[in-house]
Amino acid sequence: MTEKQTWSQRFETALHPAIARFNASISFDIELIEYDITGSQAHAQMLAHTGIISSEEGEKLVTGLEQIRQEYREGKFQPGIDAEDVHFAVEKRLTEIIGDVGKKLHTARSRNDQVGTDTRLYLRDKIQQIRQYLREFQKVLLDIAENNVETLIPGYTHLQRAQPLSLAHHLLAYLQMAQRDWERLGDVYKRVNISPLGCGALAGTTFPIDRHYTAKLLHFDDIYANSLDGVSDRDFAIEFLCAASMIMVHLSRLSEEVILWASEEFRFVTLKDSCATGSSIMPQKKNPDVPELVRGKTGRVFGHLQAMLVIMKGLPLAYNKDLQEDKEGIFDAVNTVKACLEAMTILMQEGLEFRPQRLAEAVAEDFSNATDVADYLAARGVPFREAYNIVGKVVKTSIAAGKLLKDLTLQEWQQIHPAFAEDIYEAISPRQVVAARNSYGGTGFEQVKQALIAARTQIV
Amino acid sequence: MTEKQTWSQRFETALHPAIARFNASISFDIELIEYDITGSQAHAQMLAHTGIISSEEGEKLVTGLEQIRQEYREGKFQPGIDAEDVHFAVEKRLTEIIGDVGKKLHTARSRNDQVGTDTRLYLRDKIQQIRQYLREFQKVLLDIAENNVETLIPGYTHLQRAQPLSLAHHLLAYLQMAQRDWERLGDVYKRVNISPLGCGALAGTTFPIDRHYTAKLLHFDDIYANSLDGVSDRDFAIEFLCAASMIMVHLSRLSEEVILWASEEFRFVTLKDSCATGSSIMPQKKNPDVPELVRGKTGRVFGHLQAMLVIMKGLPLAYNKDLQEDKEGIFDAVNTVKACLEAMTILMQEGLEFRPQRLAEAVAEDFSNATDVADYLAARGVPFREAYNIVGKVVKTSIAAGKLLKDLTLQEWQQIHPAFAEDIYEAISPRQVVAARNSYGGTGFEQVKQALIAARTQIV
Amino acid sequence: MTEKQTWSQRFETALHPAIARFNASISFDIELIEYDITGSQAHAQMLAHTGIISSEEGEKLVTGLEQIRQEYREGKFQPGIDAEDVHFAVEKRLTEIIGDVGKKLHTARSRNDQVGTDTRLYLRDKIQQIRQYLREFQKVLLDIAENNVETLIPGYTHLQRAQPLSLAHHLLAYLQMAQRDWERLGDVYKRVNISPLGCGALAGTTFPIDRHYTAKLLHFDDIYANSLDGVSDRDFAIEFLCAASMIMVHLSRLSEEVILWASEEFRFVTLKDSCATGSSIMPQKKNPDVPELVRGKTGRVFGHLQAMLVIMKGLPLAYNKDLQEDKEGIFDAVNTVKACLEAMTILMQEGLEFRPQRLAEAVAEDFSNATDVADYLAARGVPFREAYNIVGKVVKTSIAAGKLLKDLTLQEWQQIHPAFAEDIYEAISPRQVVAARNSYGGTGFEQVKQALIAARTQIV
Amino acid sequence: MTEKQTWSQRFETALHPAIARFNASISFDIELIEYDITGSQAHAQMLAHTGIISSEEGEKLVTGLEQIRQEYREGKFQPGIDAEDVHFAVEKRLTEIIGDVGKKLHTARSRNDQVGTDTRLYLRDKIQQIRQYLREFQKVLLDIAENNVETLIPGYTHLQRAQPLSLAHHLLAYLQMAQRDWERLGDVYKRVNISPLGCGALAGTTFPIDRHYTAKLLHFDDIYANSLDGVSDRDFAIEFLCAASMIMVHLSRLSEEVILWASEEFRFVTLKDSCATGSSIMPQKKNPDVPELVRGKTGRVFGHLQAMLVIMKGLPLAYNKDLQEDKEGIFDAVNTVKACLEAMTILMQEGLEFRPQRLAEAVAEDFSNATDVADYLAARGVPFREAYNIVGKVVKTSIAAGKLLKDLTLQEWQQIHPAFAEDIYEAISPRQVVAARNSYGGTGFEQVKQALIAARTQIV
Repeated sequence: MTEKQTWSQRFETALHPAIARFNASISFDIELIEYDITGSQAHAQMLAHTGIISSEEGEKLVTGLEQIRQEYREGKFQPGIDAEDVHFAVEKRLTEIIGDVGKKLHTARSRNDQVGTDTRLYLRDKIQQIRQYLREFQKVLLDIAENNVETLIPGYTHLQRAQPLSLAHHLLAYLQMAQRDWERLGDVYKRVNISPLGCGALAGTTFPIDRHYTAKLLHFDDIYANSLDGVSDRDFAIEFLCAASMIMVHLSRLSEEVILWASEEFRFVTLKDSCATGSSIMPQKKNPDVPELVRGKTGRVFGHLQAMLVIMKGLPLAYNKDLQEDKEGIFDAVNTVKACLEAMTILMQEGLEFRPQRLAEAVAEDFSNATDVADYLAARGVPFREAYNIVGKVVKTSIAAGKLLKDLTLQEWQQIHPAFAEDIYEAISPRQVVAARNSYGGTGFEQVKQALIAARTQIV
Repeated sequence: MTEKQTWSQRFETALHPAIARFNASISFDIELIEYDITGSQAHAQMLAHTGIISSEEGEKLVTGLEQIRQEYREGKFQPGIDAEDVHFAVEKRLTEIIGDVGKKLHTARSRNDQVGTDTRLYLRDKIQQIRQYLREFQKVLLDIAENNVETLIPGYTHLQRAQPLSLAHHLLAYLQMAQRDWERLGDVYKRVNISPLGCGALAGTTFPIDRHYTAKLLHFDDIYANSLDGVSDRDFAIEFLCAASMIMVHLSRLSEEVILWASEEFRFVTLKDSCATGSSIMPQKKNPDVPELVRGKTGRVFGHLQAMLVIMKGLPLAYNKDLQEDKEGIFDAVNTVKACLEAMTILMQEGLEFRPQRLAEAVAEDFSNATDVADYLAARGVPFREAYNIVGKVVKTSIAAGKLLKDLTLQEWQQIHPAFAEDIYEAISPRQVVAARNSYGGTGFEQVKQALIAARTQIV
Repeated sequence: MTEKQTWSQRFETALHPAIARFNASISFDIELIEYDITGSQAHAQMLAHTGIISSEEGEKLVTGLEQIRQEYREGKFQPGIDAEDVHFAVEKRLTEIIGDVGKKLHTARSRNDQVGTDTRLYLRDKIQQIRQYLREFQKVLLDIAENNVETLIPGYTHLQRAQPLSLAHHLLAYLQMAQRDWERLGDVYKRVNISPLGCGALAGTTFPIDRHYTAKLLHFDDIYANSLDGVSDRDFAIEFLCAASMIMVHLSRLSEEVILWASEEFRFVTLKDSCATGSSIMPQKKNPDVPELVRGKTGRVFGHLQAMLVIMKGLPLAYNKDLQEDKEGIFDAVNTVKACLEAMTILMQEGLEFRPQRLAEAVAEDFSNATDVADYLAARGVPFREAYNIVGKVVKTSIAAGKLLKDLTLQEWQQIHPAFAEDIYEAISPRQVVAARNSYGGTGFEQVKQALIAARTQIV
Repeated sequence: MTEKQTWSQRFETALHPAIARFNASISFDIELIEYDITGSQAHAQMLAHTGIISSEEGEKLVTGLEQIRQEYREGKFQPGIDAEDVHFAVEKRLTEIIGDVGKKLHTARSRNDQVGTDTRLYLRDKIQQIRQYLREFQKVLLDIAENNVETLIPGYTHLQRAQPLSLAHHLLAYLQMAQRDWERLGDVYKRVNISPLGCGALAGTTFPIDRHYTAKLLHFDDIYANSLDGVSDRDFAIEFLCAASMIMVHLSRLSEEVILWASEEFRFVTLKDSCATGSSIMPQKKNPDVPELVRGKTGRVFGHLQAMLVIMKGLPLAYNKDLQEDKEGIFDAVNTVKACLEAMTILMQEGLEFRPQRLAEAVAEDFSNATDVADYLAARGVPFREAYNIVGKVVKTSIAAGKLLKDLTLQEWQQIHPAFAEDIYEAISPRQVVAARNSYGGTGFEQVKQALIAARTQIV
C-alpha cells in the first residue's frame, strides 16, 4: 500500500503500487534537487516581497530550504520512491522541518512552472560547463597546432589524397567547428534562460506575484510572455539536444580520423598507453577505444534528440505528463557530451603523438601536387579546364610509368607543354604546394599563422 | 592511479583515470552478470569435453562460477569501476576463488564473442518475458471485449464520427496489434537465438573447440556461420528495437484514445483513483498520467532504435568499441516496454470503466448512420456513387434543419428518393447499423462473436 | 555508352551507365541553378577584379552566365542526366555559348566550395521566405486573438479541463512559438550566411583570389576562416533542419488541437467547406485533412534531420561524396514547412470558425474553477496546501451529489470553511476566474490586452 | 477555382486551391496506379461473384479498368492535380469510359481499405525485387570469394590489425548479412501480404462481400481479422523500413571498407575507371563515389523509418489522413535500396580489383600473429591468461627492438619460455595462422571451403 499522495484529497483509493512506481520520477529528477531548492527560495522571497506571505514566513521557507540542501549534500536527505517527485519530496521535508508554514510555499505556483524553472536552471548551468569544456578542447587543439605549422600532412577528399596540408591547418578546422558549437550554445542559452516561474499550472495565477522579481533573483534574462507557452514549451530542450548532436558530429569526425591515423596503414600517430586499451586475447593490440566510444556515443545523443521531438509531436496545450520524459534524455546528453569532450581533450593532449617523419614521407610520395601543375599552367595563360585536362594525361602516363611527378625530366615536362620551366620542380614540392595556397583561409603557412593568432584571441 | 588492466602487459603506463572511467562498462553491463556466468560455464564444459582442459579443471571452473553467481545474488560480489567490465570482473574473481585454473577459462574465447553471447542470452530471455506481458495485455482486452459485444461506441476516422462500433470490436483491434507484436518478436527471436560463441576475436580459434556443444548447452537454435559476422553483427539488437518501437506505437495509440475518452468532452470512460493522479494546485483534477507517460515514453524507444542504427552505420569489420554502446539502449527499451505493457494492462483491467449510457447516447446523436442510407439505396439498385451523392445532400439539408436522419418523416425520405420505405428507420438505428456490418472482420455482432472465440483460442 | 565526363582525362574507360545514373545529382540539384549562376558570376567578377583573368573575359563569363539564366527560365536549357550535376551543366553550356573563355570560369575554384556556396545562397533565401510565412501565420493568429479577448475557452492540462482561458491568450501561445521560430531562424541564418567560396577543393588556392570581394558581391555576412571546414561543414543544414522540425512540432500541436476542436465531442470550431474534405463512402463526413496532414508531415521533417545527422556522423575531413545527400532533405524540408505554414494560415484565417456559444457553455459546466476556491481560501490566510485539500474534498462531495461548485449554497460553503462569503460566487464565475489570473503572462483580460499590443508591435 | 470533388455533395463551397494542392496525393500515388487497377478488378469480380452487381456489370468494370491500364502505359492517361488521388482519378476515368456502371465500382469499399490494398500489392512486389537484388549481390560476393580462398587479408578489430584472414572469409561475412536481410524480408513479407480489402472505411460493410475471394484473386496469404486494424495498420511499412535500414547498415559497412581499401594508405584494391569519378580541379583524383554515396544514402533510409514511426505515434483509431504520408518514404526507401544494391553489386563485380601482392605483404609485416604465440603456449599447458601475458611482453620487447616476431631467434624464444620449439616459426607464418583457425565458422581454409559450398547451395 503506497502512502497517500499530496494531491490525493479528491481521491478515495490509493494509487496502485505498480502505477505509483511507473509515474514516479524521483529516481532521476533528484538530479534537479538543488535547482529546485534555489527556485523555491526565490519563489518564497517573492511571496514575502509582494506581501502574499509575511517576511517572517518567507525567511522560514528560505532557511528551511537551505537546510534541506545541506541535508542532501551530506547524504542525510535521500527521498525514496514514495516521494513521487523531487518537488513533493522537498515540500514534504520542508513541512517536517518548519511546520505548517511549509504548506504556504506552493502558493501561486504549480509543479508545471516549477519543473520548467528547475530544468532551465539546470540546463543553463550545464550549457556553461559544456562551453568551458569546448574551450579546453580548443586550447589543446591550438597548442598542438601552434607547434605544427610546418608539419605537413596529406589532405583528403573522398579519403583520397588530394592536396598536402599544414597539420596546424587541419587541426584548426576542428577548432572552428568547436567555435561554432560554442557560439551556437550561446544562442541556445538565450532561449533556455527565460523564466516560466509564475505561469502557474497554465493560466497564470490570481495572486499578485512579481515574476520579474523571481527572474531577477534567479538571473533569468527574460520571462515567458505567455503562461500556456511557458509551461508547455520544450523548444529549449530540443534546441540543446540539437546543439549537443552537432558537437557529437564534430567529435565523431575527429574520432574517425584518429582511428584512421592510428591504424597500421596510416601510422600518422602513435597512441600512448595512457589512452589506449588492449585486447583480451590478442597481446599485440593497442586499441583506440576512446575515439571509437565517442563515435559510438554519437548515436545516443542523436537518439535523445529524436526522442524529444517525438515526445512533443502533436501534444495539445498546455502541460501533459509526456513532458516528464524530457529529463533523462537531457541529463544523459549533458553527461555524454561532457564525458566525450573531456576524453577527446585528454586524448589529443596526452594520448597521441603525431609522427612527423612518417607524415613527411607520406606527402612526398603521391600525386597530390597535380593541381599545382594545372594551376602552374593556368597562371601562364592556359585556360583552367584545358590545363586540368593536360595534367590528367600526365598523371595517367606517370602512373603507367611508375613515376611520380617530381621524377619527370624537364624535357618530359616541356613535351607536355612548352610553358613548363625549371621552376616547376619547386612549384610541386610539398612544402611549396602548401605554402602556395595562400588565399584567405587556405593552408598556406602565412595564412595559418594568422589563423593561429586569430584563434588564440578568439578563445581566451 | 588505476589498477593494472588484464590486457596491460604490453603497456608501460597505466590508463589515465578519466579514460578508464570513460571506457568502463561495468556500471551497466553488470546487468549481464548471470548470463555471463552461464555462458562461461558452458564454455568451460566444452573446453573439458573437447579435452582442451581436463575434466577436473572444467569442474572447478563451473563450480567457481556458480559460487560467483551466489555471491552476486547475495550482494557479496559487487565489482567496482576498476573491474572495467563484467567479463573481467568475473574472470578475476574466479581466479581469486579457484586459483590459477581460473586463468584457463578464457582459452579459445575472446571478449568479442563472449559479450555477444551474453547479450543474446539476455535478450532472448527478455523477449520471452515481453511476449508474456503481451499475452497478459491481450487477455485483459479480451475480457473486457467479451463483456462488451453489444456495447456501442462511436467509430472514428479523422477523429470525426464515422460509423458506430461494437466496443468489443474496437478493443479487438488492439488485441490484433499485440498479436502481431507477439508474432514479430517470435521472428526476431529466431535471429537473436544464434550463438556467436567460438567466433573468437574475429577469426575463430586455433583450439579444437566444439561450437555446437556450447550452443546446445545454452539452448541456442543455431550458430553463426561466419566468425567475422558473429562478432560484429548487431542486427538482432536493431530488429528487437524496431519490434519494441512498434509495441510502443500501438500502446501510444491506445493511450491517445484513453486520454480522449477520459476527457470532459468525450466522457466515454471514468478513470479510477488507483490509476489516476491529481494536480499540485488544481484540486478537481484527475489526470490520465499513465497513458500520457506511455505516449511520451514512445519517444525514447524510437530514440534507442535510431541510436543503434547510427552506431552501426559505416563501421568496418569486425568488432569495434562502438558496439559497447548497444547495451544501455537495449536495456532501457526492454525495461520501458515491460513497464508500459504492465501499466497499460493494469489501467485497462482496473483503472478505467466504460460508461455505457454515455456511449449509447453518443452513437444515437450524430450522422454516423449516413453510409447506411447510401448502402440502403445501393442495395436497391442505385449506383453507389449516385446513392452517396443523394445522401450527401440529405445530410446537408438535415444539418441546416437541425435534424438527425432518424428525425426525417417517411414522406421526406421518399421525396429524396422513392426507394425509401418504412424499414429505413430500422436500417439506420445504431444497433442495426452495427449489426449490418457483418462482413468478415467487420463490426457486426456475429462477426465480433466469432472474432472473440478465435482470439480466445489464439492467445492461450 | 555515356558521354565522357569533364574530369575524365585520367580515366581510360567511361563510367558504367548504371553508376553514372547513380552518381548524378542533376535531377534534383537543378533546383540550385540560379544560385549557381549567381555564384559563378561573382566568382568571374572577382577573377577579373584581381587580374586572374582579363576584364573582358570576366564580362564574357558574366554575360554568358546571364544568358543561361534566361534560357533556363524560358525552358530552353534543360540539362539531362549526362550533365552529371548542375555545375558541370552550366559550365558546359557556358563554353558552348562563349567559347574557350568558358573554360576559365573554374579557375581558382572547386566544385566543393562551389556547391557549398550554392546551397547557402539557396537556404538563406528560403529561410527568409519561411520567416515571412511565419509572420503571415502570426498575423492571422493575432487578428483572431484581437477579436476574441473575452471569448472564453476551457484550458487543459493532461487534456483534462484545468482552468478557463481567454481564447486570445490560447492563440497567443502559438504566436509566441512562431516568434521563437522566427528568432531561431535568425540565429540559423547567421551560420548559413557565411561564404565558403574560395576554399577550393579543401586547402584554398594558389591564385591571388579575393574571398572578401565575392562575399560582398553575394551579400554574405562573413567568410569561412578555415578552408577544410568551409568545404566539409554542414552544420548549417542540420541547424536549419532542427529549426524546421521545431516549426513542425508547433504546427503539429495546433493541428492536434484543431482536430480535437472540430470533433463532435468538442465542437469548439466549425470547419468550413473550403478547408475540409469528405469521405469516399461516408456522405456525412467533413474531415480536418489539413491539420491531419500537417501533423503527419511532421514525421518527414524529423526524418530529414535524422538523415542529415547520420550522413555527417564519422566522416573524415574534408569533402566526401556523402555530402551530396544533403540536398534532397533540405529541399523537401523547405517545401514542406512552407506548404504547412501556408495551409495552416489559410485554415486559421478562413477554414474554421470558433463557436462562442458552445465555448461559453463549456467553461460554465465543469470544475475548472476549483483552484480559485483554493486561492480564495489561501488569500484569506489558509495555507495553500491546506486550502487545496479542503477544496479537493468539496469537489469530491459535489461530484457525488451531481452538483457543480456554483450550485453549492452559501451555507454549504460555510460548513466547509467559515472563511467563505457571498463573494465566492463571483470569484468562481468563469469570467472572473479568467480575469483574476492577472499575473504577468497570465490569461487575465488586462494581461491579454497588453500582450496583444506587444505582439502587434513585435511582428510588424 | 478547383473542380468539384467526388465527395463534395455535402459541401457548399469548393476547396481553396492551395488546400486542394496541399491535400492532393496524385503527384506521388500515381506510382500505385497499376496496383490500384488490379485491386479494383478483383473487387469488381467479387462484387459480381457475390451478386452485389451483375456479371455483365462486373465484366464492364474489369474491361474498363484494363483499358485505363493500357492508356496509362501508353502515356495517354495522365491525371493532373485536380484528380486529388489515384483512386478518384481511376474511378472518374472509368466512368468516362464505361458510363454509369463505373459508379458501382466503389460499392462496399472505401478509400481506406483500397489504399491499404494498393500499398501492400506494391510493397510485396518490391520486396520480392529487393530479395532478387540481394541474391545478385550475394552471387557476386560468392564468385569473388571462391577465387580468393587463399588470398590473405589483414583482419581488424578496432581498425587495428588483429589476425590475418582468408579474403573469402571476409567477403562471406557480407554474404551472411545479406542472407539475414533476405530472410528478414521474408518475415516482413508475411505481414505485408495480408488483405485489408473489404474492411471498408473502418467497420466492414453491409454488403455480402467475400473478402476471401478477393484475397485469393490477389494472391494474399491472409486477410485482416479486424476491420479497424485493417485500415489503420502501418506496421508493415515500419517493418519494411527497418529491414531496409538494416540492408543499408550492411552496405554502409562494406562501403566504408571499400573506401579504406581504395585509399593510398591501404591500397588493398584498385578502383576501376568504370566505377570511379574524378575531381573538378584535382587531375590525379580517382574517387570512390559509389561507396561514399551508398554510405550517405544510409541516412535517408533511417530517416524514412523514423518518419513513419513518428507519423504513427499517438494516432487514434482508425484511419487518419496522416497515413497518406506513408507513401513517399516507402517509395524512396524502395528505390534507394534497389539503387544501392545494384551499384554495390556492379562495384564489387567490375569496379574494383583486389591487389594480392600488396595484401600478401600486409599480412606479413605486423604482429597479428601474436595470439598464435599465446595459443601455442596454451596448447602446451600454460594457462591462457599467463601465456597472454608472456606474449604481451614479447611484443613490447620486439617493438622496442624494431623486430617482428618472425625475426626472433629460437634462442630468444626459449629465453622467453622453454616450451617454444622450432615449430614456432611455422605456427606464426600468416598462412598457418589463417589455416589454424579451423574452428567452425572460422577463417581456416577448410572451414572457408565448406562455407563456400554451403553458401552456394543457400543462394540458388
